[in-house]
Amino acid sequence: MMRALVPWDGLAPAGIRADVYDDAADVSDVDCFVLPYPQATALPLIARMPRLRYLQTLYAGYDDLLPLLPAGATLCNGRGLHDASTAEHALGLILAAQRYLPTWVRNQDRHEWRQQYTASLADSTVVIVGYGSIGQALGRRLVACEATVVPVASRPREGVHGVAELPALLPTADIVVLVLPLTSATDRLFGADFLALLRDGALVINVGRGRVLDTEALLAAGGRIRAALDVTDPEPLPADHPLWNLPGVIITPHVAGGSATFYPRARRFVAEQLRRIVAGEPLHNVVLGPSIVSF
Amino acid sequence: MMRALVPWDGLAPAGIRADVYDDAADVSDVDCFVLPYPQATALPLIARMPRLRYLQTLYAGYDDLLPLLPAGATLCNGRGLHDASTAEHALGLILAAQRYLPTWVRNQDRHEWRQQYTASLADSTVVIVGYGSIGQALGRRLVACEATVVPVASRPREGVHGVAELPALLPTADIVVLVLPLTSATDRLFGADFLALLRDGALVINVGRGRVLDTEALLAAGGRIRAALDVTDPEPLPADHPLWNLPGVIITPHVAGGSATFYPRARRFVAEQLRRIVAGEPLHNVVLGPSIVSF
Repeated sequence: MMRALVPWDGLAPAGIRADVYDDAADVSDVDCFVLPYPQATALPLIARMPRLRYLQTLYAGYDDLLPLLPAGATLCNGRGLHDASTAEHALGLILAAQRYLPTWVRNQDRHEWRQQYTASLADSTVVIVGYGSIGQALGRRLVACEATVVPVASRPREGVHGVAELPALLPTADIVVLVLPLTSATDRLFGADFLALLRDGALVINVGRGRVLDTEALLAAGGRIRAALDVTDPEPLPADHPLWNLPGVIITPHVAGGSATFYPRARRFVAEQLRRIVAGEPLHNVVLGPSIVSF
Repeated sequence: MMRALVPWDGLAPAGIRADVYDDAADVSDVDCFVLPYPQATALPLIARMPRLRYLQTLYAGYDDLLPLLPAGATLCNGRGLHDASTAEHALGLILAAQRYLPTWVRNQDRHEWRQQYTASLADSTVVIVGYGSIGQALGRRLVACEATVVPVASRPREGVHGVAELPALLPTADIVVLVLPLTSATDRLFGADFLALLRDGALVINVGRGRVLDTEALLAAGGRIRAALDVTDPEPLPADHPLWNLPGVIITPHVAGGSATFYPRARRFVAEQLRRIVAGEPLHNVVLGPSIVSF
């Protein structure tokens, strides 16, 4: 019988023996591995799974898994599971920055009632760089907030600009949101050149991968450009890193995808993937390897 | 010629002599007074305007102005000018509470990268108490955020519950938003009885008037119920008030209505009101007195 290692109990259909992930488990006979979320501490186990045929990450990004995958195995990602959670966090970061939430929190800690006019999201122009399912989920929220959304994807399509148009679009932006996977094309895509095209006080949000934004360039632009970052480079950010103190920067520790709304969706998704494996049906979200996993 | 005292330059049409508000001005011949925003420091001037025929506040609420208004004068409020700004701030408070923004701000100040799962707005049920133009603007934003919106107004109407149904609705709520004016019917409307009907960990938002929520009852429910308040009772909140430190409470100093998106709308509105006065046309947003002001 196939053996699976999974993050949660009660997911597997008949035909799979599923154990809940545990650092100390004997994993030599694992065929199917659904990584826990977060997954960093579980990655070393993959090298001890010679029979592995199906690796499932619950993240959308999978660049870090490619070197670990055994030949011929199928890798599936968690595309779609984080759309609502990540879009919502990006919106929360935008509103926190525009409506000065950190100032109010710090004033509350000092018991200070001190009014101040703030920026706003309504009537702002927001360039969303990366217009997949998360970017679109964010776009719908921003339109409801009376912002003007300018969608940008790697290739232009109907109603969506291409990355090549960014130099013309960035000077019009009040806010730029980066929702990009890390690839050779996006690695430090957003550097000194792009930052220089932004207005004074423009806000850069990053909820994709930390290395899409050049940290040194942001530090150099510090004070002129504001930022709210759920992902950083390096990550985790060391305690002595200058980014913590950069004026106008908000940092959250890569938590955009992992809110309460993610779990029920992730559970349903994993249960359906395991059902498909047993039934010999094509898997969802295959990013490498055969879409039907045979044992 | 009519004399007006206004908050900003360049608003008045021919036929009105408009001066920009100044504490020290001689105001004895003022016919039209457009209050500055915020307005608290300008209120004592009203008693020194024996000719006043038109008083314009840029707030939606006007309970505090009624005792100051000379007999026969027209009072207009700022209904509509704050819809986007206030709804956006309410959404920011909801996201700050659900996605633990204060925790991240405090951790950032300590240079701590510490992950934690958060609640979410998506899939939540939000009861909006007060479904005028601000409540509806918030409702549109929440629907885009994949929340379920339950609208409640003083009287039931098509698709909107009445206040009398609150006891049945509150136990279903993850989040309750209060967007009510202060009247004898809403004064401390939300007290111990209503708070007791809420689930553990439910979130109460107040962006209307502080006295709609009973502060003592909230303090007594402290820890069990979370809150994010842009208005408080008393207001401003004194430095030694226990609400500052109540666990799970976020406080902003009555700034929901006054963001960047408010000013252009307010300028256009005031210019149009002054034009109507000179033309003898009916004013917008009349809450007391004749809608055509004659001199």
